[in-house]
Parts: sequence; C-alpha cells; structure tokens
Amino acid sequence: MLINTYYNTDTIVAVATASGMGAIAVIRLSGANAITVANSVFKGKDLTKQASHTIHFGTIRDEDKVIDEVLVSLFVAPHSYTKENVVEISCHGSDFIVQQIIRLLLQNGARLASAGEYTKRAFLNGQFDLAQAEAVADLIASDSALSHEVAMKQMRGGFSQEIKRLRGELVHFASMIELELDFGEEDVEFADRNQLRALITNIQRIIRDLLKSFELGNVIKNGVPTVIVGNPNAGKSTLLNKLLNEEKAIVSDVPGTTRDFIEDEINIEGITFRFIDTAGLRETTDKVEAIGVERTMQKLSQSSLIIYLFDITEITAVQVQAELDRLNPKKLPLIAVANKIDQASPEKIQRFESIEGLVTISAAEGANLDELKQALVEKVNLGKLNIQSQTIVTNLRHVDSLNKTYTALEDTLNGLDLGISNDLVAADIRRALYSLGEITGEITTDDLLDNIFTKFCIGK
Amino acid sequence: MLINTYYNTDTIVAVATASGMGAIAVIRLSGANAITVANSVFKGKDLTKQASHTIHFGTIRDEDKVIDEVLVSLFVAPHSYTKENVVEISCHGSDFIVQQIIRLLLQNGARLASAGEYTKRAFLNGQFDLAQAEAVADLIASDSALSHEVAMKQMRGGFSQEIKRLRGELVHFASMIELELDFGEEDVEFADRNQLRALITNIQRIIRDLLKSFELGNVIKNGVPTVIVGNPNAGKSTLLNKLLNEEKAIVSDVPGTTRDFIEDEINIEGITFRFIDTAGLRETTDKVEAIGVERTMQKLSQSSLIIYLFDITEITAVQVQAELDRLNPKKLPLIAVANKIDQASPEKIQRFESIEGLVTISAAEGANLDELKQALVEKVNLGKLNIQSQTIVTNLRHVDSLNKTYTALEDTLNGLDLGISNDLVAADIRRALYSLGEITGEITTDDLLDNIFTKFCIGK
Repeated sequence: MLINTYYNTDTIVAVATASGMGAIAVIRLSGANAITVANSVFKGKDLTKQASHTIHFGTIRDEDKVIDEVLVSLFVAPHSYTKENVVEISCHGSDFIVQQIIRLLLQNGARLASAGEYTKRAFLNGQFDLAQAEAVADLIASDSALSHEVAMKQMRGGFSQEIKRLRGELVHFASMIELELDFGEEDVEFADRNQLRALITNIQRIIRDLLKSFELGNVIKNGVPTVIVGNPNAGKSTLLNKLLNEEKAIVSDVPGTTRDFIEDEINIEGITFRFIDTAGLRETTDKVEAIGVERTMQKLSQSSLIIYLFDITEITAVQVQAELDRLNPKKLPLIAVANKIDQASPEKIQRFESIEGLVTISAAEGANLDELKQALVEKVNLGKLNIQSQTIVTNLRHVDSLNKTYTALEDTLNGLDLGISNDLVAADIRRALYSLGEITGEITTDDLLDNIFTKFCIGK
Repeated sequence: MLINTYYNTDTIVAVATASGMGAIAVIRLSGANAITVANSVFKGKDLTKQASHTIHFGTIRDEDKVIDEVLVSLFVAPHSYTKENVVEISCHGSDFIVQQIIRLLLQNGARLASAGEYTKRAFLNGQFDLAQAEAVADLIASDSALSHEVAMKQMRGGFSQEIKRLRGELVHFASMIELELDFGEEDVEFADRNQLRALITNIQRIIRDLLKSFELGNVIKNGVPTVIVGNPNAGKSTLLNKLLNEEKAIVSDVPGTTRDFIEDEINIEGITFRFIDTAGLRETTDKVEAIGVERTMQKLSQSSLIIYLFDITEITAVQVQAELDRLNPKKLPLIAVANKIDQASPEKIQRFESIEGLVTISAAEGANLDELKQALVEKVNLGKLNIQSQTIVTNLRHVDSLNKTYTALEDTLNGLDLGISNDLVAADIRRALYSLGEITGEITTDDLLDNIFTKFCIGK
C-alpha cells in the first residue's frame, strides 16, 4: 500500500510566513498548474519558460492595476518541497497586499490550501515518510535547544530508519512463513522458528527502549511540569519571578528577533520547565496546611517535579523533614530549597545539612539561583542520555503504534510456543508489520492522514 | 551632491518576515561579503560559485550540528534590492531557529542590520530615490485599497517624476542665470525673465495643488478622524459596534489570512474612518449638554467629520436643528443621523425632512447602514478625485519641503520685480532647487536620512 505517485491537479495557495507586519511575506503555490496560475497574474518574464530554482522580478497585476512588485521563485516538479510545481511569491510584508494577491490567485484557478496540505502532498509524493512529515510541525513549534534537536533528527530520518530496519527484518520472516503457507500441506519450514523467536525478542527489547524514551521525549517536547510548594511567606512568587525575569532577558538577547515569551516557562540547558498552576501560586495566601492534603496531592499529581521551598528563618530542619515525608509519599523527584539564607547565620544554615540534596538560596538577592537550576536539570536526569545517538520518541501516535506492535509480537511468540498453525502466526506478524508501518506511513488511511495534517497550520 | 556609489563593506543580517509561527521565515544578508558569510555556515553547493537569482537547497550548520534545512536565494550585486550582494535564507518558521541562524551569522562576520538599513542602502546605491524609499514603508503599512494605491504609485516613481520634472525646468533657468553671473559686468541676459516668471508661477500653481492634495493624502494614509456625538440614549455605542462588527467580517473574508483588525477603525470603499475617543464614547453617560461646550468643542476640533446621532422617538426636528447649529458653528463636515426609525411612524419620520442630508437608520436592526456608509464616503469627497491620474502628497516631510520651495520661488519673483542683482536671484532659485531636491533625495544630509530610515522596521 505504498503511495508514491500522487500528483494532485489542484493548485493550492496560502501565505507561508507568519502574519503581521514584516519587510516581506511569502505566498506559496503548489500543483501541476502552479506556474501557469502564477504566470497569469505576473508581468515580467514568461514564468512557464524559466528553469527550476530561479528567481524573477516583476509585478503582480489585476488587469492593469499593479498590486505589488515581487520576486517569484520557481521550483519545477519534482524538485520542490511537495514534488509538484511550486511557486513562491515574495511580496511586501503587508497583510493587505498578501490578501489581495491570494484573492487574485484564487480568481485565477488556485484554491486555498487546507491545514498541512503542502506537507501532506510532500508525504504522498514520497518526499519523506510520515514520521518525518510530523517532525516538520514539531520543528516549527520547537522552542528549546533539545526540542529543536530531537525534531531535526526525526525530520532528517533518524527515527524512521530505526523503525524501517526493524520492519525490514520482520518482513523477511513474514515472507518465509507466507511461502510455507503456499506449500500448504507439505510441511516445509523456510523460516527458522528459533531465529524468528530471537528476532522478535530483540525487536521487543528495542520497542521497550523506544517506549521508555517517550517519557524523556515528552519532557523535551512539552516541558517538565513543575510545581513550587511551601508556606505563604517562603518566597514562592519571588523565586518564580526571579527565574522568569532571567529567562526573559535570555530570550531577547538577539535584538530584532522577538521570540514569544511564555509566561511561567523557563528554559535551562535546553530543557523547558513548565510551572503549573502558578497563577494560583503567585496569589495564594493559604498555608500548605490550609490547602488540605487533597488539594496539595492533586497539584503534585500533575507535576513531574516538585520544588519544596521554605523560609530558613522560620522553620526547623525537623519540621522540614516532616513536611517532605508528608508531601511526597510517592517519592516524586523533589528538590528541597532553603530560602532567605541572607538573613540566616552560617550556624543556622548548617543545622539543615541533614536534608537530602538541599539547595540554599536567597530569591530576593538572586543568590545561588544557578545551583538551583543545576539541581533542576539533574533531577530531570537528562545528563546521562546522549540525545545525538539515542532515538527518542516524542509523539503519542508513535507510542500507540509501538504498543500495538509489541502486543502483536507477544501474540506471535505465544502462538509459536503453543504451536498454532502457520496462517495464524502469519496473521500476528502481519499485524505487527501493519502497526510498525503506520509510524512511517508505509501503511496509511485517509483518517490517519487527516488526523495528522489538520493539526498543521495553513501554509505548511 | 548625488550619491550613487555607496558600497558598504559591512554585511548586515536581519529576519525579513514577521515574527511568530509560520511555515517559513526568511533571513536576509546584504553586503559585499554576504555570499561568503552565508557560505561559511551552509553545507550544500559552494554558494560563491553560483549564478545570481538561483536557489540552492542545503543545511545551515554550526560545525557538525544541523540547525536547519534551508533554501538559499542568491542575488549578485548589483542585481539585488540593495544593489549589493544579497542572500536570502528561507528556513523553517520557528523564532527559535531564526534566532539560532542569526546568531551563527553574527559569529561568522555579519552584524545586525539597523532599522531601515536595507532600504537606506538601496537608496544610497541608486536603486530608487528618497520619496520612493519612503513609499516602501508606506506600502508595508498600507491597510486599505486607497493607501495601498497611493503608496504603490509613489514607490513606482509617480510622485518623484513630477518633482524631478519641476526641478528640471527650474535647473535650466538657474544655469542660465549662473552663466550671466560668469559674464559679470557685461550685462548679457541668457535667461528670459518673462519666461522665468511664467515658469515660476506655473511651478507655484503645481505646488499649491500638491499641498492641497495632502489633505486627501493624509486622509488616505491616516484615515478620517470621525466623532459620533449625541445624547446618551441615542445609540452611539450600538451604531459603532454594528459598523465595527461588519468590518470584522469583511476583514477576515479570505480564510487563512488574518489581517490585523484595528479597534475603532472601519474601512469603506478604501477609505479608513478612525473613530476618535470612542472608548469614552462607548461608556459615556453624559448628556451632550452636560459635557459642556468646551469639551464638546475639543472633541470636535480633533475630528474631520462629525456624526450627530439622535433618537428620533425622543426629540423634535426643531430641537435637532438647534443642536446642530450649536454644535457645529464652524460648519465642519457633519452628518445628521436619526436612529430608532423602527420605533417611529412614517409620519413622525417625515417631520424631520427639513434636516439637511439626514440619514435615517435603525442601529439595533442594522437598517439603512449602507446609506450611512455612502454618506460618510461622500462627505470625504473623494468621489470626484481620480487617484490614478492625480499626484497625491501623503508625507509631512514632503509638505515641508514643498512649502519651503514655494517661499523661495515667491522670493525669486519678488526679487525679479524689484530688479535685484543676478546673484541674489540665483541664490533664491538655488534655495528652491535645494528644497525640491530634498524630496527625492538629490539633496540629502545624514540627519535627514537617519530621520527617515530609523522609522522603518529592522529587516526592511
């Protein structure tokens, strides 16, 4: 069910750059007639007679009226993103002009692209597989060094190669067993059952590793949900604001490039820490005691990492230890942080030495915040992982397919143990192949594709 | 003082597309070394050996680390926007990636472009004149059909041609008079004084027309400041919301292209009506009487157009006429609008026939709003003007230069009448030439250029 030759005749159009005022905006056309459609509103050279990967200056005209002076880039099929004819019109960056040009192109035979339609066409025309196509959206959404790196690796085929290699090995045995079926009653055995068992066990081990990597992949893609708990005067909001303000300064350190700053997220060494329920946190006047066990536990259950902050001048080490035991019976990753050390004597601070992994800071003075950041990164435990060499799953759909594959392989193993008939073993292996194939799109359905590409933005 | 050969050796870099998430973003480099700088971070073909106006696929790398897969467009000097070597890098539309690439280019010899620096270089290198350069910013900011049309005409040199033609005619006489000066005491007259007088009078007439067009140009560029006055229950906020909501629907009529919607502006037939002080208007509970003459007059003095709205069920025609006389002694353009006609009998409505140019509506039911819009457009009085054929001044700087030119020409005429010496006449003409030359940038100073280009955005 490989689909590699999908030449859609529709010409689609959409703006490919972010909306708003910029020096330029880019409008993209794709389809067999993309160049002809663009040519019908362009005054300059005859675009239909130009080479691929060339750029042409001219005007976009609605009859005699000049809408804009533009540069038109031509990509002749199959040498384009979609593998169709593609035209990119670089116009002045006014939404009004973009709208006028798109309107004109719609009048001249193009239709508006649906969400993700360029990338969908690229996939259907064999530019890349489905996991790579999905990585394009992840790449655009990437906002940290690690999420960028993982998405880039997936887009460049790292993940797909691993899946295809597994599938390739399994296909070999599947075809042997199918061959045995052809021989029917003759009781031949082309597929060595021991080798098959060893292969399946190996594939299952790899799938387990991949599934395990999702925890990390999810952290990289979506950030680490982190909660700060502590008594009202412990300095929670001071600490959070201090961390966020440092982040703001980092985010905007290349002038002229304004990155969106996300309230309540900080990025440390490429890892995003997402502070949950911080609006409440900032305003809260409840004491930890007053919140009640239930509400505290509910907050903690949403988090992957807890910062327990206390005012070192107002509490004893014994009290802190009691609070820690009470707050974190499930032993979630937790960092105990003593605040206001600028107001405490060295002797006082020393009395808290018994608290495991304690970080001592002054939020108000910004003292030791780097130590706290280091502790946060260490808790996420990425240090020992090598992002470059390891394959990391970041996509829930892939997790789902991997789980299905694992189950089908388990069923195959059980079938072999029970000595069931070849056709049933073959069916189990086919099921495993099907699920693996869904990841890279060797197996697809319209629903699956719709589900994936409608999550893209229009223009991609 | 023509500056046509300004080859800056600095390589400047900035993002050229709007910030935020899009499918792609474009980063632009310009300068003698732009291609070399880009080549140092690009893996693919050797960019320094490629032809102008070609596009190349490859990766941007920080040593071995792939930052993005990109398309690189090359423009070899002088065939580019700035007339320098220009490279455009089309990358995935993530602000994070844009920031990484720019950072890398900065490390490799580029520097961040200042506001308007690309267009300033284009001007200094003779790509276009100063009035055209200014129109680039106007074009990007254009948000209505008329502002777009006027900016486009100016960018394409329509306005500049007119100024240069005037200047050319004047230059001829100036050189004749300068020649007379060379002959010193010999009392020759190369420049026919009557022809010179006729020419100056003609130029003054044209300048008067241009200055007059600024009123319209300003309306086109900045909108018509409009105020709605009336008693608190007249339905002012209902009317305004109705007009704005219709506008919202129109603004977003091409899906996928989100234009900024500006609160309190509506666009009718290409003209922007800007409702001033509408925040107050919407909440006001003051009666017109209660506002006091002073505050009412202050509001009205900021507006170019007044809508006087009244509730037809609560006031008599005589009262309305009295209010109109009181409110508008200066006879500003005003439209009297009777609201709530759905609650009034035809006989009642007929009693208001004496009010000049009355428009009758029901804001709540949206009845007759098209008639009101038509009346608004007619009051601005653009109907009789032909935007295509007429030159329209939209820039305050140009108004200033035209005024100075006019005064210098007036002084020249007076000088001729008084029979003053040739060198004084020549000085007056030179002054007129200087002011005219400032418009198109034949005469420039660093301050003037800074003043113009720092108003541009970075990346343009």
